[in-house]
Amino acid sequence: MRTYSFVNERYASAPGSPIRELKQFSELPGMISLAGGYPAPELMDAGGLQQIFSRFASAEFGRALEYGGTEGAMALRVELARLSSARDMAVEPADVLTLSGSQQGIDLLARTLLSPGERVLVEAPTYPAALSAFRFAGASIHQIATDDEGLVIDAFEAALLRLKPKLLYIVPSFGNPSGRTLGEARRRALLALAVRHRCLVVEDDPYGELYFDQAPPPSLYGLRQAVDGAERMVIYLSSLSKTLAPGLRLGWMLGPADVRRACVLAKQTDDMHASTLTQAAAAAYLKQGLFLEHLPQLRRAYAARAQALVRALREHLGERIRFTEPGGGMFVWARLPGVDSTQWLKSAIERRVMFVPGAAFFAQAPDPACFRLSFASQDEAGLALGVTRLAEALRSV
Amino acid sequence: MRTYSFVNERYASAPGSPIRELKQFSELPGMISLAGGYPAPELMDAGGLQQIFSRFASAEFGRALEYGGTEGAMALRVELARLSSARDMAVEPADVLTLSGSQQGIDLLARTLLSPGERVLVEAPTYPAALSAFRFAGASIHQIATDDEGLVIDAFEAALLRLKPKLLYIVPSFGNPSGRTLGEARRRALLALAVRHRCLVVEDDPYGELYFDQAPPPSLYGLRQAVDGAERMVIYLSSLSKTLAPGLRLGWMLGPADVRRACVLAKQTDDMHASTLTQAAAAAYLKQGLFLEHLPQLRRAYAARAQALVRALREHLGERIRFTEPGGGMFVWARLPGVDSTQWLKSAIERRVMFVPGAAFFAQAPDPACFRLSFASQDEAGLALGVTRLAEALRSV
Repeated sequence: MRTYSFVNERYASAPGSPIRELKQFSELPGMISLAGGYPAPELMDAGGLQQIFSRFASAEFGRALEYGGTEGAMALRVELARLSSARDMAVEPADVLTLSGSQQGIDLLARTLLSPGERVLVEAPTYPAALSAFRFAGASIHQIATDDEGLVIDAFEAALLRLKPKLLYIVPSFGNPSGRTLGEARRRALLALAVRHRCLVVEDDPYGELYFDQAPPPSLYGLRQAVDGAERMVIYLSSLSKTLAPGLRLGWMLGPADVRRACVLAKQTDDMHASTLTQAAAAAYLKQGLFLEHLPQLRRAYAARAQALVRALREHLGERIRFTEPGGGMFVWARLPGVDSTQWLKSAIERRVMFVPGAAFFAQAPDPACFRLSFASQDEAGLALGVTRLAEALRSV
Repeated sequence: MRTYSFVNERYASAPGSPIRELKQFSELPGMISLAGGYPAPELMDAGGLQQIFSRFASAEFGRALEYGGTEGAMALRVELARLSSARDMAVEPADVLTLSGSQQGIDLLARTLLSPGERVLVEAPTYPAALSAFRFAGASIHQIATDDEGLVIDAFEAALLRLKPKLLYIVPSFGNPSGRTLGEARRRALLALAVRHRCLVVEDDPYGELYFDQAPPPSLYGLRQAVDGAERMVIYLSSLSKTLAPGLRLGWMLGPADVRRACVLAKQTDDMHASTLTQAAAAAYLKQGLFLEHLPQLRRAYAARAQALVRALREHLGERIRFTEPGGGMFVWARLPGVDSTQWLKSAIERRVMFVPGAAFFAQAPDPACFRLSFASQDEAGLALGVTRLAEALRSV
């Protein structure tokens, strides 16, 4: 007999995050993990950040221990507005809603925008935690085909016509898991269609700053003023987790005032506000210019790692594997026709290498031959060795 | 014509937090605020905490910048388990779910336990942000009468019979806003009734450590093993916000494993985990014994402030005002028969003193004559002056 549970159906029946559940294996001795989308600890500017804490005047440190406003500390909002404006989105500090990580933004939007049964469009493949947030909100999720240039616009239009969705969730620059980037023409076409069919666009952009040679096209949020009627249709999310440090739990949202207000209400009853202490530290770090100073280094390091992974994949799996070479971010999304990546992972873990099988990234009809490799948290040698092991493991599947 | 909004009905129609909306007035020059439940900045051990940050070995600081587990960092869970065990709740670190403030626990429970239309019981008066969280989850909220000793057990039983609620939310020790403490006999009776009627008990305990002379009775969570069948019926929430520093955004949950698992799933899609950096700092602070060392000082200071407020109230409003003298916490809940406290607040703000009118603390039938005074963030002189102004303002209502 099953024990009675007080948990409601939606949560009682939900699986855990497949990526987080892989984490136990990452601690096995000698494991080379290509699984998590975690920034490399040795590439973070820990020294710079620790100095910020030691150099706080004591009055300033004391203030950073107090409660703060739900929207975030003004000092940080000023810096996040400056950062957004430098990207291509002219915004005022008052337009910035500070988040406890950009993922919280997805969750707040799911809670405040969606009603059970409403339809949400996502890319195939897409970010699993976004799928969870939309599922918990009771939404019905539908995936749109993508190709090397990201979302396929015809497929998007067909879905708009057929499904009348409330919103589209998209990671247009160096997508997770796809590593792909939506071209500018597609971005404009996407916005025009979103306006015509009254479909909100939630643009998730944690990776845009991590480009290798060339910055991605203008953000959807940045383009909203160039497309008639798109002004109120785009919500932008970004994060300091991939570029500064995930342990700070800081991200931000830009978007229409009524949407931000609703998210503030939801956040008030949730964590009230992001840590005032990590906000103060991030604000000081950004204000001193350390963030922009550190970025080029990060880009170079990730570019070298991406290249090492791509080279090793071509060398060891070149005849069988298909993938798009990424221009930034943390991921290579690949496909090995005829291989069940979940089975492959088992034999890979025995050989002390791991990755994320593709199934978790689909809302429907998962393609078992797909998988995600992250190059972010291994150095070049680790990546090369990891791929050798992957190839060995593949021979035994 | 109202502009079309994408926000769903629940959030579009919700009012903001009445307490947070008062915050603008607290910044007026010369304002004496008795409104917020904010710990006094000058009583926090900012120096001790800042030393923790400067003394982190750089490797340790670096690790605290990385992603962490949703349940929290083990070093902090060890300390929170120790703290809980010292209270009267023998738990293991693995039983502790770390939260980004205890309020997040209320929100996670509302999301994972409740389905629209299910019934929730609260005290009259109760904590407004809990009301919001339950409302956002679509619950139907019913309040139970309280007296000087807290929840009236007969009224609770009647509500159980009549409403078959899913859960009871209660702040049993130095309640917010009531300042009142539920006696031990009532605690046992409450648990027995909860078991009989299969009603979960959510015990919110942010203030229990802030007692003046005498510790509160055993927690409901601590008593769950003493009452037949109560083992799986109690969820305990507590916080470091009132005793260490709210800016860290740290709290914790104890409770049945299935409930904690559901909350972990919800938190995974929300902020993923509390800041690893503030977790590391709190863990080190607790481990070094600084927390328990600092507490007596905090208790003495708040006791002196409570006494000063009570004395001033008796002196200036003694003939008209009714209240229970608190034995801990941060609040005096009072009633002035025949006075509309919302009107009174307006004239009080003109005289540069403020408090929270009672209406916000009721789920139904607000009593306009009630109001909440916090003695936490003013010193004795400020409290005395504040009450003089309150009395003046009252004469002009």
